[in-house]
Amino acid sequence: MSRPVVSLEQSIHDVVVANRILAHEGVLDAYGHVSVRHPLHADRYLLSRSRSPELVEAGDIMEFMLDGTPLGEHPPAPYVERYIHGAVYEARPDIHSVIHSHALEVMPFTLGNIKLQPVMHVASDMGLEVPLWDIRDNFGDTNLLVSNVAQGRDLAKCLGANKVVLMRGHGFTSTGRTIVDAVKAAVYLPQNARVLKETLLMGGGVKPLSPGEIAVRVNIDPYSPQVQRAWEYWALRAGVKPYL
Amino acid sequence: MSRPVVSLEQSIHDVVVANRILAHEGVLDAYGHVSVRHPLHADRYLLSRSRSPELVEAGDIMEFMLDGTPLGEHPPAPYVERYIHGAVYEARPDIHSVIHSHALEVMPFTLGNIKLQPVMHVASDMGLEVPLWDIRDNFGDTNLLVSNVAQGRDLAKCLGANKVVLMRGHGFTSTGRTIVDAVKAAVYLPQNARVLKETLLMGGGVKPLSPGEIAVRVNIDPYSPQVQRAWEYWALRAGVKPYL
Amino acid sequence: MSRPVVSLEQSIHDVVVANRILAHEGVLDAYGHVSVRHPLHADRYLLSRSRSPELVEAGDIMEFMLDGTPLGEHPPAPYVERYIHGAVYEARPDIHSVIHSHALEVMPFTLGNIKLQPVMHVASDMGLEVPLWDIRDNFGDTNLLVSNVAQGRDLAKCLGANKVVLMRGHGFTSTGRTIVDAVKAAVYLPQNARVLKETLLMGGGVKPLSPGEIAVRVNIDPYSPQVQRAWEYWALRAGVKPYL
Amino acid sequence: MSRPVVSLEQSIHDVVVANRILAHEGVLDAYGHVSVRHPLHADRYLLSRSRSPELVEAGDIMEFMLDGTPLGEHPPAPYVERYIHGAVYEARPDIHSVIHSHALEVMPFTLGNIKLQPVMHVASDMGLEVPLWDIRDNFGDTNLLVSNVAQGRDLAKCLGANKVVLMRGHGFTSTGRTIVDAVKAAVYLPQNARVLKETLLMGGGVKPLSPGEIAVRVNIDPYSPQVQRAWEYWALRAGVKPYL
Repeated sequence: MSRPVVSLEQSIHDVVVANRILAHEGVLDAYGHVSVRHPLHADRYLLSRSRSPELVEAGDIMEFMLDGTPLGEHPPAPYVERYIHGAVYEARPDIHSVIHSHALEVMPFTLGNIKLQPVMHVASDMGLEVPLWDIRDNFGDTNLLVSNVAQGRDLAKCLGANKVVLMRGHGFTSTGRTIVDAVKAAVYLPQNARVLKETLLMGGGVKPLSPGEIAVRVNIDPYSPQVQRAWEYWALRAGVKPYL
Repeated sequence: MSRPVVSLEQSIHDVVVANRILAHEGVLDAYGHVSVRHPLHADRYLLSRSRSPELVEAGDIMEFMLDGTPLGEHPPAPYVERYIHGAVYEARPDIHSVIHSHALEVMPFTLGNIKLQPVMHVASDMGLEVPLWDIRDNFGDTNLLVSNVAQGRDLAKCLGANKVVLMRGHGFTSTGRTIVDAVKAAVYLPQNARVLKETLLMGGGVKPLSPGEIAVRVNIDPYSPQVQRAWEYWALRAGVKPYL
Repeated sequence: MSRPVVSLEQSIHDVVVANRILAHEGVLDAYGHVSVRHPLHADRYLLSRSRSPELVEAGDIMEFMLDGTPLGEHPPAPYVERYIHGAVYEARPDIHSVIHSHALEVMPFTLGNIKLQPVMHVASDMGLEVPLWDIRDNFGDTNLLVSNVAQGRDLAKCLGANKVVLMRGHGFTSTGRTIVDAVKAAVYLPQNARVLKETLLMGGGVKPLSPGEIAVRVNIDPYSPQVQRAWEYWALRAGVKPYL
Repeated sequence: MSRPVVSLEQSIHDVVVANRILAHEGVLDAYGHVSVRHPLHADRYLLSRSRSPELVEAGDIMEFMLDGTPLGEHPPAPYVERYIHGAVYEARPDIHSVIHSHALEVMPFTLGNIKLQPVMHVASDMGLEVPLWDIRDNFGDTNLLVSNVAQGRDLAKCLGANKVVLMRGHGFTSTGRTIVDAVKAAVYLPQNARVLKETLLMGGGVKPLSPGEIAVRVNIDPYSPQVQRAWEYWALRAGVKPYL
């Protein structure tokens, strides 16, 4: 099965659906955001104006240049942290969707030296390595927000060739080959963090996914019925009708 | 009280109700599934097409041979992991319903060496022994999905004469003498896992159900008012009307 | 403020409201029950037929003798464990409402040797001592259900002069001077268990309510506006209109 | 952006919205309350009558003197603990909103010697120091409620120049420069407590916000779009329409 996104209208609807799903599944709250690379212009991306994800509608979606400059006349107030998105799209042509979240289950893995790794098959999308970025390392005492191109690029550099980067005291940024792929990864990342945490606390050891298992799973078709099944389910739960 | 299922129509409705209950009670999410042995043909089973449990309707229910071959012309896309169901029905004539779940509370017991055992009376259905299956033992690095008859049979062999089998990094497969029985067991299994985990963490010891207590409880009539009470309750909470 | 219950009709409505509240607040699920002593006959109590609390309606409320015998012709199937209620009313004239619950947060304190005690002011109703009863001590291997008068009386004996008794691998039975009082105690007991558990896990010590604080709080008027405020709130959340 | 509150009508609506938000986000349950300093009279404050926050309407909002005396003829029953609010407004002219909560996630930090500190950027509002007040220190065995001016002033003294004060076995009192500011701080305080607790349990160390980071964040404009975004979101989730 293939479901390439071709029209701008469809991409905008996908961003709305992704916002609603991530809010409903508890990955985003008042804050956090999700973008998609522009389907017609690889050097632009689509992202909501500064609004909480649960409330985002098609009319809120803006177009941005990779340096965070909004397109169009009289743009509304954008998210301060839009630089995250542009910097990742700039560094990684293979990535077509970016999510920034403060999910509480992931937070403990940003604060100490316990390594986050995939232990559940559905969470294999995070890959073998999940690096941790601390804005204080290169920018000193800030408000912790990724507020300019330099900070965005520093984060993207830490992400490297991986799928997810943790952010100390702040949350994570995750990515996908498609927006459906990105949403699926972001939904299961906090669940995997919770399961790993509980397993570690019980003290009976932990058997993570093997590098070989992760390698097999990374090739799962992002348009397969199994992936589309979840997109349909999450969208309908969130009260929106998805493209399938 | 007895409530033998006799018609195909009634069995199909039971599968729909079971899907909705397990979704609503948090045992199944986008993934996981529940089947019932065909009421008229012991060598077939009824299972939804590849759809998230909360969305399953009567028209989604398909018939399968025990080897996973769908019956009927132009069958829709089935679940990849349907082989779990057929292999269990093949090996265990006493089992009439099978559930496959990724419930997060159970997951930590699939990842380390802490033994899952019943500590709450309502969770006695899991029985004295809950074996743990690791697909890697006999099949090496896979995508962890039970994707063919050989893998299904290997899982069923590990289940043996027990009621539930854990699956490393994946979840569990549980069973029942009836579909109501199976749903009840699957609802309380994650709750028991959570309670056991918290008890172990507190470090004050744990007193599980005794073998004698489990033996007494295993004989509870699957059609008793106490069991039917739960089925009625869970179904109405999930917004569906059950047969009683 | 005083709100003595005088009519049978009002008591029946209170039992319905209590069922709905306890279901909605997560204290009762498919199982568990709540009764009130008969307002006109101290040797009888009012309790639903065998039905899940969230579904209980006025027409489900039955009258029982203290030995568990239902009154009226052609009584419907009662709860197996109704003997808990009668035995407590028999032993304790000061008690006018009894609740039996399987709340998961409390369960770990029934399984090991960690003592449950009040640490939050709103949970002082459990009192200084919360005894633990194990049906196995005097009755050997059973299905763990309190299924006859002897078992009920053994439980009531363990309760003694206290407010709450834990039941190993099963849950708890709690009581109140009024039904509002009993519901409030049962709502906060699991919350206190959770808080105590988390405090113990952090390893920084725990400062429980002092005997003097418990003694001051035990005298709070069960008809005060603070108590009625909670009853109104919980009832409206559960979708029922309470007497105030 | 600036959004100074000017009218009494608008302030009353803000208090209603704050009650609904804090109930819906799980910060307040049957108990707890939120007030705002009177917009026209700095020596008065606005607070609901004794009612659960989820049910509060404009007609429930009362005016109080700083000593807790209600204004107007025939005032309804007020909250027992209104003295908390007056004492904080009296001691701290910079504070314009006060919240008193029993949120369970925070409770463990009131019971032992584990220090609560900000680890998430969105929770920086609690500041560097979060003092712990124990009513028993100066008032002996009480019902733990702040029931008079002396107890309120003792609590305010412990708060000192900080933003939040913990209350042993009881909960916390938090404050804000504006009511939006106060609500945001109270929503994220329990979340930060949960994350800190889980991080500590994992045993891999913890890297809190630095004093410098807290200092940068404390200057965030309380009327900025980022803060208003959350207010809009929380209000709409709670079913009320906010002033923006």
